[in-house]
Amino acid sequence: MLYLVRMDVAFPESMPADERDRLKAAEKEFSQALQRDGRFRHIWRVVGEYANYSVFDVASNDELHEILSGFPLFPYMTMKVTPLAKHPNAID
Amino acid sequence: MLYLVRMDVAFPESMPADERDRLKAAEKEFSQALQRDGRFRHIWRVVGEYANYSVFDVASNDELHEILSGFPLFPYMTMKVTPLAKHPNAID
Amino acid sequence: MLYLVRMDVAFPESMPADERDRLKAAEKEFSQALQRDGRFRHIWRVVGEYANYSVFDVASNDELHEILSGFPLFPYMTMKVTPLAKHPNAID
Amino acid sequence: MLYLVRMDVAFPESMPADERDRLKAAEKEFSQALQRDGRFRHIWRVVGEYANYSVFDVASNDELHEILSGFPLFPYMTMKVTPLAKHPNAID
Amino acid sequence: MLYLVRMDVAFPESMPADERDRLKAAEKEFSQALQRDGRFRHIWRVVGEYANYSVFDVASNDELHEILSGFPLFPYMTMKVTPLAKHPNAID
Amino acid sequence: MLYLVRMDVAFPESMPADERDRLKAAEKEFSQALQRDGRFRHIWRVVGEYANYSVFDVASNDELHEILSGFPLFPYMTMKVTPLAKHPNAID
Amino acid sequence: MLYLVRMDVAFPESMPADERDRLKAAEKEFSQALQRDGRFRHIWRVVGEYANYSVFDVASNDELHEILSGFPLFPYMTMKVTPLAKHPNAID
Amino acid sequence: MLYLVRMDVAFPESMPADERDRLKAAEKEFSQALQRDGRFRHIWRVVGEYANYSVFDVASNDELHEILSGFPLFPYMTMKVTPLAKHPNAID
Amino acid sequence: MLYLVRMDVAFPESMPADERDRLKAAEKEFSQALQRDGRFRHIWRVVGEYANYSVFDVASNDELHEILSGFPLFPYMTMKVTPLAKHPNAID
Amino acid sequence: MLYLVRMDVAFPESMPADERDRLKAAEKEFSQALQRDGRFRHIWRVVGEYANYSVFDVASNDELHEILSGFPLFPYMTMKVTPLAKHPNAID
Repeated sequence: MLYLVRMDVAFPESMPADERDRLKAAEKEFSQALQRDGRFRHIWRVVGEYANYSVFDVASNDELHEILSGFPLFPYMTMKVTPLAKHPNAID
Repeated sequence: MLYLVRMDVAFPESMPADERDRLKAAEKEFSQALQRDGRFRHIWRVVGEYANYSVFDVASNDELHEILSGFPLFPYMTMKVTPLAKHPNAID
Repeated sequence: MLYLVRMDVAFPESMPADERDRLKAAEKEFSQALQRDGRFRHIWRVVGEYANYSVFDVASNDELHEILSGFPLFPYMTMKVTPLAKHPNAID
Repeated sequence: MLYLVRMDVAFPESMPADERDRLKAAEKEFSQALQRDGRFRHIWRVVGEYANYSVFDVASNDELHEILSGFPLFPYMTMKVTPLAKHPNAID
Repeated sequence: MLYLVRMDVAFPESMPADERDRLKAAEKEFSQALQRDGRFRHIWRVVGEYANYSVFDVASNDELHEILSGFPLFPYMTMKVTPLAKHPNAID
Repeated sequence: MLYLVRMDVAFPESMPADERDRLKAAEKEFSQALQRDGRFRHIWRVVGEYANYSVFDVASNDELHEILSGFPLFPYMTMKVTPLAKHPNAID
Repeated sequence: MLYLVRMDVAFPESMPADERDRLKAAEKEFSQALQRDGRFRHIWRVVGEYANYSVFDVASNDELHEILSGFPLFPYMTMKVTPLAKHPNAID
Repeated sequence: MLYLVRMDVAFPESMPADERDRLKAAEKEFSQALQRDGRFRHIWRVVGEYANYSVFDVASNDELHEILSGFPLFPYMTMKVTPLAKHPNAID
Repeated sequence: MLYLVRMDVAFPESMPADERDRLKAAEKEFSQALQRDGRFRHIWRVVGEYANYSVFDVASNDELHEILSGFPLFPYMTMKVTPLAKHPNAID
Repeated sequence: MLYLVRMDVAFPESMPADERDRLKAAEKEFSQALQRDGRFRHIWRVVGEYANYSVFDVASNDELHEILSGFPLFPYMTMKVTPLAKHPNAID
């Protein structure tokens, strides 16, 4: 079951650079583990923005929220979730 | 080169049902031909809306506009194009 | 799996009154059948608007879209779907 | 008498982690007491957001405001209240 | 129990002038009856707009919706309802 | 001459609690003096928000601005002023 | 007492050209009479739009609404009224 | 003196195809004459939309409005004008 | 050549009161010098807001930007510039 | 391949003036190098705002994102990218 998620990142002004780096490294690891297990299908950078569009393939709304709220950057991201369905014109 | 496109369809009140059906059939054919040649990577229905999110893989902005404006439903769709770049956390 | 859906109804100016009545009767029947089978948990009128908030309990995004697009008034409604998850403070 | 309330939480950057934890624990207790006495009918997490949709069943606007402004997290939440009425298609 | 309601009127282009006049006369009568029985406390014109802000004093959300949807102009109005509570600084 | 004013309050994160209390007490006194002299006709709490709708009866735009900018909380409020006129359906 | 008014004009698709011309001529006459009597201080075209910003000098909200709703194009205009006060830095 | 203008085109549903074609041909001629005389510096299609961004180089606001309102498609376009100034980092 | 400018002022929370006073005094002086030399035609307070609508009469976009960015409060203001043209109904 | 980019700059309140100056100097150098190599075609100041519209000519979305995210002010700018295509009425 697919969902499109737009994520916008905004760090608080007061966060030290090394804390930021630590969080970004943890985010990368978390993100890549999810991609490898097949539940995180796509992640694309929005050109010119500290933002991405991501596609998740999960079994339920609860599973998606558990994943999204587990991202190390979750407290610093605004997320907008769009549930997707099969399109009648899709060939796959 | 990838682009995310959101398309919302709205037919004019005055369009006869058979004209609508003819356009939707032409749209399906046009859409599936593009999916088969690899330039139209994904099309997903937005749940509860007469709308879709689509992902295109083309060589240029001009090629994308030529494709999008060639859709039989183009005059009845509102499109919003987001250019995408590779994300540093993507594993593919 | 729960979803909150806001539906706003707008009939085209040109629709004859009896067509409107026929659609509303069909909508009522469709809506009540879904409520009885347990997948349509709540429907509330938004005070002062020709709109409602509805809660659905379905197995997938695809099932939800199939239900929503099957409503007789679907072509005359704007729908906004919000996927819901269990809240950590909920007691049920 | 029912009301739908959307609540979005945003803690100030300067709040220490333990103050945050204390507030969240107090919030949980307050929330669950209201759910047990029947006035707080539903609380659902919005997937991907630090937000919820809640349904209250109270006797008046004043009673609702008293409840909402009593939430320990009230100073850190944006609330949007929608009054609900019985829908003619509802079977309950 | 008080509610503030903003109402914006927009007649369809195709409505004949006499139908419009008939509706406006019925609206006036309906509106003034409600004002006389005490449930329709205030109605003010928004300067420069075919719109008003109105204050209702009713016993419930259902009663308010019944009143609002009974206005002869209801199908041609956009309404936005705000529930009001007693303000701690109010002297009345 | 009437005006509807919506006021939303937002204190800066850094303001000490006692300064906040002092300001709120001054606000109450200022507000009630204006209500007693007849120029501040109504103040209602917006349910669920740190906001109010207020109605003023003054002789001019300048008098209204002088009053509004004199509120002790003025620097911490967002105000939106709507000039009101007599409505043709009003019976008062 | 000054007010800034933004007016946007939109004629319905079905209006015949001569009716449009008749209305625009009446509008011009009405507008210029008001400018000559001193209550209509300024009218400026917004570059690239069928819209204007106008400044009125009247004695009350009611007088302003009477003027604005008397414009021959009133039914085809969207108006947004901003009440103005003397600015402390103004030298006039 | 430069201005950026975004233009969105929307033809009324009732316009016959040949009238549309005639207008588009006149638009092209008008547009190209202006480009040749140097006042219409750039015109770019917005990908996926019946819209463009254009850059004009004219001597005054009045000249710009005269040009824009002279476009054959002016009645069917929404325009948004942004005045531009020299940027301190520009090398030209 | 005229321009309408809306300016909204917002001081940062951390600015000391005397710095604020110094800036406001400098702003007043700068503003009044411009009014006296004829390029700053009008400045009006928006009732209830720390904002103004101003009208400038300058020779070019560049001159306007030079003036606006020279205001002592420029770093603390949001400005929205609307270029104005002569209105066909204006009598001046 | 062209893109229009709107950039709005907002420095955090806490940034020291010399850090700001250092960043602006680096920005100027970076910007002018790009203009000289032909990929940064235009940069215009938006009158009255700390913002610009820029036009880039690059080979791909990835190249554009690499450039934009390399700007020294990137962390302090909001960017909005619009992909452009050749317009059928353009003579160049």
